[in-house]
Amino acid sequence: MKLFDSVRAPNPRRVRIFLAEKGIEVPRVMVDLAAFEHRSEAFTKLNPLRRTPTLELDDGTIITESVAISRYFEELYPDPPLFGRTPLEKATIEMWNRRVELGFMTEVQMVFRHGHPGMATHEIPQVLEWAEANKSKMMASLRMLNDRLGEVPYIAGETYSIADITLLCAVDFMKPTKIKVPDDHTHILRWYASVSARASAAA
Amino acid sequence: MKLFDSVRAPNPRRVRIFLAEKGIEVPRVMVDLAAFEHRSEAFTKLNPLRRTPTLELDDGTIITESVAISRYFEELYPDPPLFGRTPLEKATIEMWNRRVELGFMTEVQMVFRHGHPGMATHEIPQVLEWAEANKSKMMASLRMLNDRLGEVPYIAGETYSIADITLLCAVDFMKPTKIKVPDDHTHILRWYASVSARASAAA
Repeated sequence: MKLFDSVRAPNPRRVRIFLAEKGIEVPRVMVDLAAFEHRSEAFTKLNPLRRTPTLELDDGTIITESVAISRYFEELYPDPPLFGRTPLEKATIEMWNRRVELGFMTEVQMVFRHGHPGMATHEIPQVLEWAEANKSKMMASLRMLNDRLGEVPYIAGETYSIADITLLCAVDFMKPTKIKVPDDHTHILRWYASVSARASAAA
Repeated sequence: MKLFDSVRAPNPRRVRIFLAEKGIEVPRVMVDLAAFEHRSEAFTKLNPLRRTPTLELDDGTIITESVAISRYFEELYPDPPLFGRTPLEKATIEMWNRRVELGFMTEVQMVFRHGHPGMATHEIPQVLEWAEANKSKMMASLRMLNDRLGEVPYIAGETYSIADITLLCAVDFMKPTKIKVPDDHTHILRWYASVSARASAAA
């Protein structure tokens, strides 16, 4: 088994943190996104969508998409559960993982990919107006997530889950947008300090 | 249990088709998106993100997000399995569901929401350049999906799954964009005829 991985990008990091929380080690092959290694012929054969993370099983089967790779490991190694145990826990964690990913995380990525000069050769066409539109969406999502974290210790409820991993990677990915979590968002800042202090956050 | 549902929008339809495939009936409350009923005070209390579908359990618990609602029912009623059975099946179906949803389906929605005059009061700001950029992304995704359906009967492989439901709703949602599946995309047209002929497609 081999995990095609990349530094700095948020999605590969989601899988690294997930594996660290599970205590699973997988041999890794680094793919340099800045050098467009993900667009090479060899890598395109592995994953026609040309994205990391990509997992190759020993029989050559390919699994892509951070959440699909994570779920594969969750099914093989259920403890500790990061997708929930009961039907309601599973649905609630999936709901929050999606709210974070399809809302806030996507907005952060749109601000970065469409607004950062360094992304002009990656995101074609860059639509500056779309980056601008996503700044206010991103801040509104952040407020909603802060309110949620005023009610519960972790974003999906009482326990740490894959939804916290997604949110941590998204918050850290605000860095290249040069926008910070506002100081008055005390609940998300409390949560951020707590999940960043876990050993897995260094993955 | 109550399902807050809406006509025409693709996400509520995903859950209706999922329930029809499972043979599950859930009492429904219709929410009129065109009349902005999803932005009413009462509905905002149920789902602060103000979107359908929204599932309310008998104890008042709320589950939102079409895939999270579907997974809740999958866990309660595993047969027929629409998310897969083995770890590899589950990962593969999740991968394809995400490829369809985060790629093609999102692109269709961006073309519609940012390009259709009727959406100007729903999507603020409308970014016409973003609608245009998504037209070519959408057509490239459609080609990739057509190629995939040249290799397997269903989008995630040998059996019908939630990923087919997502793709069917996305293809049908091309209608308001006034762009059709090109005639030379014979594999996806073959697949479309097959999944549209299932009783569930009328849901």
